[in-house]
Amino acid sequence: LVGNILFVSGHGRNLPDLPGVKHAGKVPADVSMEEGYATARAVALSMLASLKQELGDLDRVRRLIRLFGMVNVTPGFDRMPEIIDGASDFFFEVLGPVNGKHARTAVGMAELPHCITVEINGEFEIYA
Amino acid sequence: LVGNILFVSGHGRNLPDLPGVKHAGKVPADVSMEEGYATARAVALSMLASLKQELGDLDRVRRLIRLFGMVNVTPGFDRMPEIIDGASDFFFEVLGPVNGKHARTAVGMAELPHCITVEINGEFEIYA
Amino acid sequence: LVGNILFVSGHGRNLPDLPGVKHAGKVPADVSMEEGYATARAVALSMLASLKQELGDLDRVRRLIRLFGMVNVTPGFDRMPEIIDGASDFFFEVLGPVNGKHARTAVGMAELPHCITVEINGEFEIYA
Repeated sequence: LVGNILFVSGHGRNLPDLPGVKHAGKVPADVSMEEGYATARAVALSMLASLKQELGDLDRVRRLIRLFGMVNVTPGFDRMPEIIDGASDFFFEVLGPVNGKHARTAVGMAELPHCITVEINGEFEIYA
Repeated sequence: LVGNILFVSGHGRNLPDLPGVKHAGKVPADVSMEEGYATARAVALSMLASLKQELGDLDRVRRLIRLFGMVNVTPGFDRMPEIIDGASDFFFEVLGPVNGKHARTAVGMAELPHCITVEINGEFEIYA
Repeated sequence: LVGNILFVSGHGRNLPDLPGVKHAGKVPADVSMEEGYATARAVALSMLASLKQELGDLDRVRRLIRLFGMVNVTPGFDRMPEIIDGASDFFFEVLGPVNGKHARTAVGMAELPHCITVEINGEFEIYA
């Protein structure tokens, strides 16, 4: 936390066991579009859990600034934005259409650690 | 916009149809060095268009802070900096040598959304 | 430098010739885990050299905010965090466990410029 900006590490491991969530594998060879979306949503949930742990209270979160979404892809797959929408949609729901609006980048990686499917980092604005 | 820092999403789609600009394809298999440079320049132009849309007036832009430039590459290509120079040179021209100077990262991606050739995000400093 | 945040370019070239440091090559095909770790540590050292050059005095560095670590990988390698630990461990040693603590992302890239082995960018907090 620097000033009112909280920099959040890349998340993607130790995800909750929700329907469709994959703990490893590449899209689309090992992981379907629907599973990728569910996994990105779970990554966003785990980011929110880290925010709560760091800040003590989610009421301190004013808004999401930016997400950098990385999808573990097999060659030729280029629909990363539809996967990372799982995270964006989650933050829209939790923070609302104004405070959940964010700058975003969604790209395809050669490899992610422990062959996780989605990794996302970002920045949040915190109330002073 | 948080304080005086504007976080800009990854740009690279819907580029202007200028000479050499490619809307998709990997460097160097599908896109030449010259075309890659022209495409990175067009990405920078589209970032500037987003700044104008967001801020209303480009006079509010004080300087460029940082660019993260991603080139869609075929295996073995490692001259990404020469491609992203298209964007850096554009901002030097528009903002001048002092305010156009920026921190930069230029890397090669496995895949970019919709198989675009160049994607760039970044941060700008805005006048208070 | 914007306010108290210093944005640092991607580092990874012109590394010091220390034991195990590699100036090019992919992990693990060309570069071992130990060499990758040593190389990431050298990248961190070169970031510190840039901080000194920019700020004049390293006493102005308050703490490390975030690292984005990129490892040049051959397909199937997914132990990027162990490589980037070379940089994280270095900053823990130099800045201490409190000010050296940082948000981090460690991922595998398809290609890095000039086939360098590790590239890292990041943000530091500077005393006002």
